[in-house]
Amino acid sequence: MKNKINKIAVIADQNVLQLFPYYLDELYAGVPKFVLTVLPGEQNKNIDEAVYLWQILQEHHFDKRSLIINFGGGKVSDLGGFVASTYQRGIPFINIPTTLLGMIDAAIGGKNGINLNSVKNVVGTIYLPEKVIVDIQFLRTLSPAQLLDGFGEMIKYALIGNSALWNELKKMENIYAKDIKKEWIDSCIAFKNKIVQKDLYDQELRHILNFGHTIGHAFEAYYMKTPLSGEFSSAQTISHGHAVALGIIAESYLSFRHNLLPQSTYEEIRNFILKLYQNTLKNISISEINNIVQLCLLDKKNLDGKINITMLEAIGKASPNHWVSKEDCEEAIRSLIGMAGKF
Amino acid sequence: MKNKINKIAVIADQNVLQLFPYYLDELYAGVPKFVLTVLPGEQNKNIDEAVYLWQILQEHHFDKRSLIINFGGGKVSDLGGFVASTYQRGIPFINIPTTLLGMIDAAIGGKNGINLNSVKNVVGTIYLPEKVIVDIQFLRTLSPAQLLDGFGEMIKYALIGNSALWNELKKMENIYAKDIKKEWIDSCIAFKNKIVQKDLYDQELRHILNFGHTIGHAFEAYYMKTPLSGEFSSAQTISHGHAVALGIIAESYLSFRHNLLPQSTYEEIRNFILKLYQNTLKNISISEINNIVQLCLLDKKNLDGKINITMLEAIGKASPNHWVSKEDCEEAIRSLIGMAGKF
Repeated sequence: MKNKINKIAVIADQNVLQLFPYYLDELYAGVPKFVLTVLPGEQNKNIDEAVYLWQILQEHHFDKRSLIINFGGGKVSDLGGFVASTYQRGIPFINIPTTLLGMIDAAIGGKNGINLNSVKNVVGTIYLPEKVIVDIQFLRTLSPAQLLDGFGEMIKYALIGNSALWNELKKMENIYAKDIKKEWIDSCIAFKNKIVQKDLYDQELRHILNFGHTIGHAFEAYYMKTPLSGEFSSAQTISHGHAVALGIIAESYLSFRHNLLPQSTYEEIRNFILKLYQNTLKNISISEINNIVQLCLLDKKNLDGKINITMLEAIGKASPNHWVSKEDCEEAIRSLIGMAGKF
Repeated sequence: MKNKINKIAVIADQNVLQLFPYYLDELYAGVPKFVLTVLPGEQNKNIDEAVYLWQILQEHHFDKRSLIINFGGGKVSDLGGFVASTYQRGIPFINIPTTLLGMIDAAIGGKNGINLNSVKNVVGTIYLPEKVIVDIQFLRTLSPAQLLDGFGEMIKYALIGNSALWNELKKMENIYAKDIKKEWIDSCIAFKNKIVQKDLYDQELRHILNFGHTIGHAFEAYYMKTPLSGEFSSAQTISHGHAVALGIIAESYLSFRHNLLPQSTYEEIRNFILKLYQNTLKNISISEINNIVQLCLLDKKNLDGKINITMLEAIGKASPNHWVSKEDCEEAIRSLIGMAGKF
């Protein structure tokens, strides 16, 4: 930002704003702030919300010297980052993530997006924030399920690049905010930033950050309860990190079945994750498997109808860009569902 | 594009497609093509069309190995470039401009966009095409008014950077496709590409390409006949290059009034442009001047309510980043309207 900021739009999760109404008062004190609240949840991260925000920016004559502050979880930073990157072809923004998921993943690295027909982030750009402010006091406001949402990504970082972190994490029996160490968060952020610096536009190396996500996104999209998932679905919504945790099991299974990962390591990963995420797994019904597999085919990394997966070679060592079939994915998901109630 | 292209979406102006139904047959022969027609005109360059295109790409499982071909004028390349840059966070695209305006301006340089509430390109990105195919046979299909639309930008290039081209152009009494020389087009493209290479993200140098556009965009937006311009406006639409031609007169006037440009040079510019664009000027009514000035305040280059103008120092020499007031713009537009019927 070459010049002084003339005004700020705060795009805030309405729940976060109720909990921390004065949090932003001291930030950029004196600069006029327009506070725009949005509803939490992936279901609402759509083009209608982007249009609503663009119009408000336009009505209030926001320009390239204005700033957007995204205050909330990954939904807010995905939506607000997209709006910032496209309003007047890009104005500056900063993220203040208030969830564990936001802090270690969604708010960093510049990927943003909105959903289209229940498929995640079909529309988006890659556009870096000016700054990300990480404050772990927000973690104390999160429920165990919300902490598990971020913890799924933390498990991913451990598995793809940090075996020491894995050894720490796997001691956990339950998840409480007080047990999440600041240095774990810092090491996840540092790891992601290192990868992003080398491959901002996701040409190849950055694919490793998608470990667990190809199948994970399919779970997440299917249980978003929008038209694609059927009008009468009675299942619970499965949020991003929970879906990724299960996706990690399925993709570790594929790594084992493709002779990359020892069976014992696959089982170690599976057993630990299922201890924490057993309730999530219960939401996935074997009768939906064909529809879920269909959604794996929509992943952005796919080419020519083949499904791109990052695999594991060992704890702490990822191997990107393996190609698997629809049938492979089906087998992995079937095996996963078969574990329900066993841990 | 690292890999072979798997499918192509042609985003085509429906009029162009009727005139050249087989033009694309030999291009990427053998690769499946989905032809998506869109209506010409800035009025239709909006978010609804972008959503329609994103959805089709999604339904047909377009991915990062797919290609978008924009076949038409500036409306098509602006819309199609935006869709390409945001679908799956960016897939490759090429432009085949079919208007003079597209060839020398809209299709090159990577700026894209859609309109919001009649303001041009409020939402967009900067994202370069893989390739631009320039074929002057398309010019023969254009009406004199359509040729003048591109000619306005050609005049701009001459004034900001090519006095030899100005000396050629000013000999023209009328405008016919046969008189538009290929080397003029090539020199405009080369000039723009040189500027864009040095300043893709429009930090400073690229502003010179906006000469004539701050006030030009206001004319264009006002006469687009959308809600902002009033339900009962009886005026004609003023297309981009016509609006820019008049904007050039107004901004040359400001250059003269701010003691940058000699009065005689301003008059030379004004007199030549009005000889060709007298019919355009007739559409602008003095009674609308306040509303038009209001739209100048929405220009993307503005900061803190001050209006950013590129000025001229001489024929062939631009001077970017001057700041003028609302009152300055009003005076320039009033002077311009006073010239109606005089040339």
